[in-house]
Amino acid sequence: MRTVGAVIFPGFELLDLYGPLEFYGMLPEDFELRMVAETRDPVRSGQGPRSCVDDSFSDAAGYDVLLVPGGPGTRREVSNEALLGWLKDAAPHAELVTSVCTGAALLAQAGLLDEKQATTNKAAFAWATSHGHNVEWVPKARWVEDGNILTSSGVSAGMDMSLTAVARLLGQEKAEQAATWAEYEWHRDPDWDPFAAVYGLAE
Amino acid sequence: MRTVGAVIFPGFELLDLYGPLEFYGMLPEDFELRMVAETRDPVRSGQGPRSCVDDSFSDAAGYDVLLVPGGPGTRREVSNEALLGWLKDAAPHAELVTSVCTGAALLAQAGLLDEKQATTNKAAFAWATSHGHNVEWVPKARWVEDGNILTSSGVSAGMDMSLTAVARLLGQEKAEQAATWAEYEWHRDPDWDPFAAVYGLAE
Repeated sequence: MRTVGAVIFPGFELLDLYGPLEFYGMLPEDFELRMVAETRDPVRSGQGPRSCVDDSFSDAAGYDVLLVPGGPGTRREVSNEALLGWLKDAAPHAELVTSVCTGAALLAQAGLLDEKQATTNKAAFAWATSHGHNVEWVPKARWVEDGNILTSSGVSAGMDMSLTAVARLLGQEKAEQAATWAEYEWHRDPDWDPFAAVYGLAE
Repeated sequence: MRTVGAVIFPGFELLDLYGPLEFYGMLPEDFELRMVAETRDPVRSGQGPRSCVDDSFSDAAGYDVLLVPGGPGTRREVSNEALLGWLKDAAPHAELVTSVCTGAALLAQAGLLDEKQATTNKAAFAWATSHGHNVEWVPKARWVEDGNILTSSGVSAGMDMSLTAVARLLGQEKAEQAATWAEYEWHRDPDWDPFAAVYGLAE
């Protein structure tokens, strides 16, 4: 049994978070989902709905999978030392560190992407990639894997990335099963990215 | 400005709910999202994470779009007269009534699909389609539209259905924009359904 620590903050993006959690959550014998935030107060998403919190930053240290969503709130959270400090402390304990969309800006600001390959949301590519030191930002990618760090492109790309995380941890068959249960057409190719061209980041 | 009333109950499926809410929520000038449940207590999803409630069944009557997710909790909710009664009362006020996955079993049990075409989750097709009277259940469909009622197949199909709902209410361009922002490959063809064959419901 592994734990998934999903970090939320005001203005997180709903699908960045709940897309990946759907796939981990379909395998309750393999993953326990924990919502982690600065305090235990409910957290309002960028789209309005509020989510409950299981653990505050001071409650717990170790999760096997870290999930960092993006959303409009990342613009403020890149300056939130409590969140950045928690990420720095939690990352070394995690088997996989993952982000969706502009969640990569938080990993970068925490120094976790220095000297690594990564990707992020396309519409906010210039802003997100202004964080970190010597990050090799990949403009055309559905997701990027560099060691145990998986960063995905915008919003829906988190679902493809998290299925890849499931495959890495539990094997391809379990990931295929989760995708089929969800009647989800998994994009299995990390280079599949028609949206880079839409936003002028590829030909 | 339209309101989206998303009905939640213990054991709802995360992506059934938050996939569609992502797309409505991306258009905050057009949609206000409201989470509706029997009481205002937080509601635990089938996968574990808990969601906050905005309105209880006794608080509010009219929403422009109804969203009914599926999930393991539907097995109990088909016998919950409070929920079924609320659906019966709310549906006539709604411009669109929508379901995802086994949420269609709740619409059917409330009598809202009688004499209509509808679809539902493939893995639970036999159970879900045992509800309602003279419902014309369509086994191979990503989603089905019958008048103002849109029912979708399992879990991820709700995203394609909700983009279609956005297109019906606000035009194709807004729906395309929402899909692109989310870097989402929208399946625009309601007949696209490779999962029916996986579950022996089509050749």
